[in-house]
Formats: sequence, structure tokens, C-alpha cells
Amino acid sequence: MTENRPAKPQSGRHNLDPHLDRYAARTAGMTASEIRALFAVASRPEVVSLAGGMPNLAALPLDTLSAQVGEIIATEGLVALQYGSAHGVPALRDQICEIMSLEGIKAHPDDVVVTVGSQMGLDMVTRLFCDPGDVVIAEGPSYVGALGSFSAYQANVVHVAMDEHGLVPEGLREALRQTEKAGKRAKFLYTIPNFHNPAGVTLALDRRAEIVEICREYGVLIVEDNPYGLLGFDGQTYPALRSLDPDNVVYLGSFSKTFASGLRVGWVLAPHAVREKLVLAAESATLCPPTFNQMIVSRYLATHDWKGQVKKFRENYRERRDAMLSALQQYLPPGCSWTNPDGGFYVWVTVPEGVDTKAMLPRAVTARVAYASGTGFYADGFGSRQMRLSYCYPTPERIREGVRRLAAVLESEMDLSRTFGSVKARTIPGPETPSPDTV
Amino acid sequence: MTENRPAKPQSGRHNLDPHLDRYAARTAGMTASEIRALFAVASRPEVVSLAGGMPNLAALPLDTLSAQVGEIIATEGLVALQYGSAHGVPALRDQICEIMSLEGIKAHPDDVVVTVGSQMGLDMVTRLFCDPGDVVIAEGPSYVGALGSFSAYQANVVHVAMDEHGLVPEGLREALRQTEKAGKRAKFLYTIPNFHNPAGVTLALDRRAEIVEICREYGVLIVEDNPYGLLGFDGQTYPALRSLDPDNVVYLGSFSKTFASGLRVGWVLAPHAVREKLVLAAESATLCPPTFNQMIVSRYLATHDWKGQVKKFRENYRERRDAMLSALQQYLPPGCSWTNPDGGFYVWVTVPEGVDTKAMLPRAVTARVAYASGTGFYADGFGSRQMRLSYCYPTPERIREGVRRLAAVLESEMDLSRTFGSVKARTIPGPETPSPDTV
Repeated sequence: MTENRPAKPQSGRHNLDPHLDRYAARTAGMTASEIRALFAVASRPEVVSLAGGMPNLAALPLDTLSAQVGEIIATEGLVALQYGSAHGVPALRDQICEIMSLEGIKAHPDDVVVTVGSQMGLDMVTRLFCDPGDVVIAEGPSYVGALGSFSAYQANVVHVAMDEHGLVPEGLREALRQTEKAGKRAKFLYTIPNFHNPAGVTLALDRRAEIVEICREYGVLIVEDNPYGLLGFDGQTYPALRSLDPDNVVYLGSFSKTFASGLRVGWVLAPHAVREKLVLAAESATLCPPTFNQMIVSRYLATHDWKGQVKKFRENYRERRDAMLSALQQYLPPGCSWTNPDGGFYVWVTVPEGVDTKAMLPRAVTARVAYASGTGFYADGFGSRQMRLSYCYPTPERIREGVRRLAAVLESEMDLSRTFGSVKARTIPGPETPSPDTV
Repeated sequence: MTENRPAKPQSGRHNLDPHLDRYAARTAGMTASEIRALFAVASRPEVVSLAGGMPNLAALPLDTLSAQVGEIIATEGLVALQYGSAHGVPALRDQICEIMSLEGIKAHPDDVVVTVGSQMGLDMVTRLFCDPGDVVIAEGPSYVGALGSFSAYQANVVHVAMDEHGLVPEGLREALRQTEKAGKRAKFLYTIPNFHNPAGVTLALDRRAEIVEICREYGVLIVEDNPYGLLGFDGQTYPALRSLDPDNVVYLGSFSKTFASGLRVGWVLAPHAVREKLVLAAESATLCPPTFNQMIVSRYLATHDWKGQVKKFRENYRERRDAMLSALQQYLPPGCSWTNPDGGFYVWVTVPEGVDTKAMLPRAVTARVAYASGTGFYADGFGSRQMRLSYCYPTPERIREGVRRLAAVLESEMDLSRTFGSVKARTIPGPETPSPDTV
């Protein structure tokens, strides 16, 4: 009755996991970030973490919010605590359209799908479009959470270089040409045009139309990820790629950086034909986003001076950006270079040859400063001379102190390298998965 | 420069969607439920909906909850509104272990992963284990949301019959044997042992050990989905399959039916080796579950008589179950049969040959009663003589009236069938995706 059945799972090397031969192929690249254990140490109060991407929420009006969330439960609790639609709460989708209009987008609320943070939007869009082996074009470096999603669907990432004006159009064209030449199918360009994570650069205005046109020409969709668009330090906003080509751009938005990340409310604006499939995919992923959370965001937007609040956030981040840039200027050894962000959370630092930022990280943490090493932001092992420093969360004083400590570690690392040659960390096999520390 | 590039997307039939040739293969089975449009009509107040799976939250202590959510924001707002870990809030994971102990499970909080509803748990488990073409064994009928997830990962579902004592062990053995014989790989048995959705039956105690043993024998994992386990009308709980074989069972739990579905808080208890991969998969799906929502659930469990509340829910559902069963007995024409649920939300009805429940649905909605037709709960087109009636949400009076209307529609359908032969609806190509109405 049971002859010919498969042998009990054999685990070989990993004999601690009896399920090893059962996992789907897509899990092959799914390994815990090597720096994860370090972050446990890095989260101790004596360590200055320049690694995290946690927004600084201290300026939020907690008293007002406290009253509002209580009121929602008291007056609309049976709706707030009940299942809703996978599409999202209609009033919130209306408000999202108003917000997007600040960046030139004309959209219908029907084409907005509310998601559990924009990470879920990214995951859903990849689910809809990527078969294993398909190519996703992305900036190099790119958002670690996006690389994690692309890896989960076994898509191959081809990176395109940026300069101080963002994605380089000729690089994009070349990547698309090479992808075709290799007989691969590029499904979409994933891009963060504003205040890039982790690069800290913004796509120049005159490049936007060009990039939209190149993608059109090659029949490639654009996935525009814009969590930081309203966090430009001078208050300037840029026209979204979506505004330039509504039918060929899927736009991802988020309240995590303009309101509250812990509510996990983001959205996708999709071309109409894509939107229906997106709702179906979202249903099979989570049934629906939390109803209460959507109502909280909607109430907040309707009753609070949310633009004034975003202005407070901007000022807060600008002060921290200034502290970081002046500390980098003052402390970092010669041979280091970095980007000059006009908004967002991050500075991207390149260190001199001979220093490996991943190998250096444990020593930095020992010296009580943490950062995100560059390789996590590439799917191809590049980035060992890069690191991301975030200035969003610590106080300006702590930022200065962190950079001072980092500079000392770098100096000593450069000394070592001059004496003994470069110290190489082993390259990582795939992208690291995101974590709140590397958002 | 652009020679040899792929032709612009051609859409053939569906020339409204220029993206048609870009979608991943997994989207092929992703079609909007044909009954979805009907539900828009079915949600009108004059229609008695026996189709939905929305819990009846009226008994919740909204005043207490209102005060508590406000207090969480006022006193711990900067934590509640901030990113958390993908693993979940530690205090809540402790409490989840206590809850699971009510069904005989001994678990360590480290092995619990909090998810955005148990639907996300299901999606993550399928992501971890299923390559395209892998087989999932599931009861027939099975939860529509599970079928949606399996379809999204291109797994093939093999159904195993149930009787009034739940999944039939010999049927399971035969399905595993046939799967092997066909050279396919069964990755897991997906089962809802308690108060099954949609079948309304419970797996007999003496079958539990047998099923665990069969899965061991064939080297197949068990995914145990248990949203209704605490909703047995006589207060009885059953030992979870997980308690019988901790290393080979992934357990899915949820607060949607015992507390509040709109918060979207569920969990997965996984064997230790699987848990780490699960956290990584969850990170790439949503970064983390909403922090605030986890704190709300945790606070509620810690301060409220939540077991007393579940008792209230149970009594409420029992009263409705009684109303439905007596109405079915009184009104339904001869030749109909149905299950007798001891808990949960659903009765599974089989109608006489010649009646197609899907074809009949528009007529039922016209007669102001809605139900979920049976084909949605099968991956193989079966179920045209079945329907799911849920008694969880309407009042007992409405339930009686709904069944009375349904009986009249059935009578007239049976008359038609006797006169003109059976009315067949076209079979649907794949599982319908879940929606709040068919949870």
C-alpha cells in the first residue's frame, strides 16, 4: 500500500531541518541577512545607529490621534473592526488621489488599491508580472526590500547606474539592449525617482521624459516607488513619472514616511486594466488591508493639517541631513565621497579602495556605530566599497558623534589596508531581505 | 539602436489591456469571481445574505476598546505607530502560545510568526513550499481563500472527500498514492479540522492520529488551519493536529473570528526550522504586520475577559445555527440534505440532481436571498449541486426568512428541471478568489 513512496526527507548537510527538500525553489536565495545578528547589538542604546530607516515620529500629535482612534472605535467600531474590501476604503482612495495630485498625477480612485504598506504593493506587482527568469531593471544600488521581493519571485535584477542626477538614461537603454540581446524578457523598470533609497539622489527633471520614452520604446512597464516624494527639504515636489505616462506606469505610494509606518498603509495606483488583477492578487495575499488603519489615516488626513505635519517632518530631517553632511565633511578621511540628498533619509558613502564595508561592520559596531553596508543594495554582489548612512532617526548630536566614531574606524581600517592589503568579506549569494533596520 | 526590440504588446481578444502579454503565468487562473457582481446586489439591505463569512461583532465591548486604543496611542504611540519586526510583537506571541495551549499545543513563542490575518500565513506557507505543478491535498470542498493562494503559486489541488466525521483517512491515503503514481509531488495536506469552512463538519478524534500518521508515512507536511476551533457551541475544544506531531504540522491561527477581523491579526506556528524562512518571506511580503494592531490585540487579551467574550460569540452563533437548521428542516424541499455543524459559521447544503446552484444564484438574488454556490470551493469544477449557507451574521429572524425564500427558489428550480431537464451553468476554469463575502 505504501510501496514506491518517496523516501523520508533527507537533509544531508542541514540535518537540523527535516523540511529541507520540501521547500520551493524560490526559497534558495532566502537567507537571513548576515548583518541581522549585528543589528541586535546595534540596537543597544550606546550604539549610534545610522543603519535604520525608521521615520522619526516624535513630532506626531499623539493627543489628537489618541482621541481620534478612540472615537473611530466608539462611533464606527463595527465597521473598523470588520473585514473590508481588498480594494480599500473608498474615502481613503479619494484622499490618496488628492495627495498624488501634488506631484502632477491625475488619477481615478477606482485605480487606487490600498496595500499593507507599499512593500505589499511591490510584492503584488512582482507577483503579477514576473515569471522566474524574467528581468527587472533597477537602479544600482536599489531598495533592499524591492530586491527581496524580486528574489522571492525568482526575477533577475539588472542594475543601471545612477549619477548625481539619478538614473542615467543611456545606461537604461544599454541595459534594455543587453537584456534583449541575451534573449531575456525585461518586465519592468523599478525606480525610486525622488530622494533615492539608498543613494540619496533625485532624478533630474529633463531625464524623466526621456526615461518614460525609453521604456515605451522597449515595451517595458515602469514601477515608480515614491515614499519620499513629499520630503524634499525645500518643499519642492517633482512631477511623477506616472504623470508623464499614466498607461505605462504603476505607482507605489506610502503613508509610512509622511504619517505613521506602524499602521502599514500604502497604495498602488495602476493602469486600469492592471488594477483588477491587482485587487485579486491582494485578496489572495491578505483578504483585505486592516479596515481600522485605513479609517485612522483617512480621519487624520481629513481633520489634521497633514501638510503642516509633513513640513515639520521635513524640517526635522533637514536639520539631521545638515548635521550629517557637516560631520562627514569634518571627520571622514580623504578618499571618501558621498551624495548630497535634497530630501529623504539617506546619504550614500563610497570609501577608498581597500576598505570592505561589510568586513568593517563588526568593528564599527564594536566602536558603537552602525551603518548598512552596500552589498545589501545590489543583487549582484557589488557595493563592498559603499555604505548607506541614514540620518532620519538619531538626534543631530548623535549623528555627529556617530560619524566621528565611523571616521575613526575607517581611519584604522585604511591603515590596516595600507599595511596588509585589503580585507575582503565573502560575497553574499543574493539580496538580503529587508528588515525594519534597512527599510 | 532599437532594432530587434520586442513588438509593442498585442492584446488580441482583450484589446482593452495593453499589458496582457506581460503578466506572469501565475495570473492565468486569476479571474474575477463570476458571482462578485452579484454580491453588489446581494449586499442591498432587502436581500438576506447567507453568502458572507463576516463575523458578528455586535457583542464586542466597543467602549472599553475605544478607551484602550486611545490609551495605547497616548502612552505608547511612538512604538505603536513605528515599524516593528516581521516576527511580531513578543508579548502577543507569548499570549498566542497560551491560547493554543487550550487545544493541546505546547509551543515556544519564538516559533510563532504574526501575520496580516491567517490568509497571509496561508500565502506565506504556500510561497515557502510550492513550486508550480506541486500538489496540495485539500478537503473537498475547501476554503475558497486557500484555493486562491494555491492557484497564485500554481500548485495543483487534489481534493479528498469528507463525511460527517471530517476528512476520510482512506481517501487521503488514496489521494497520496495516486499523486505519487502520477509522478507528482504532494507538498502538504491543507486541512481545516474544526467546524470546517465551508462543510461545517469536524474531524473525529480517532481520525486525527491516523491522518497525522498517514502524512508522516508519505513524507507530507500538514498545514492545519484553525480559525474556528474555539467556536464549538458546547464549548468543547479538540486536540490540534499540531499537538500530535509538532515537527510535521504548520498551524494557522487567527483573531478574526474570536476578536476582530478588521484588525487583520493572525499567526503561523511553524516547526522551528521552517519559522526562520517564514519570517524572511513575511519581510519581503509586508515588512512587518501593523504594530498598533498587535498591541491592541495584546492589550485586549491581557485586560479583558476574552474567553467570556468568545463564549458570548459562541452563544450568538449557536442561536443562529439553531435558527438555520430548523428553517432548513421546515422549508427545504425533499431531496435536499445538509450538514449539522457543532460550531463555526457554515452549513453545507446538497440540492437534488437537476439543480445547478450557480445557475440558480441570480434567481435567488432576485428573490432577495444570497448564498455561496459550491463550485467556488473546489479547484476542479465540482460542487454544482452544493451551496454554502452561513448563519454567522444575520439575525435568526432574517435567517429563517432567507431560508424560506431560498426554499421557494429551489422548488421552482426543481419544477423547471422536472419539466425541461437540468439547467447547467458553464463550469468555471479555476477557483474563485476569496472576498470578504466568501471568507
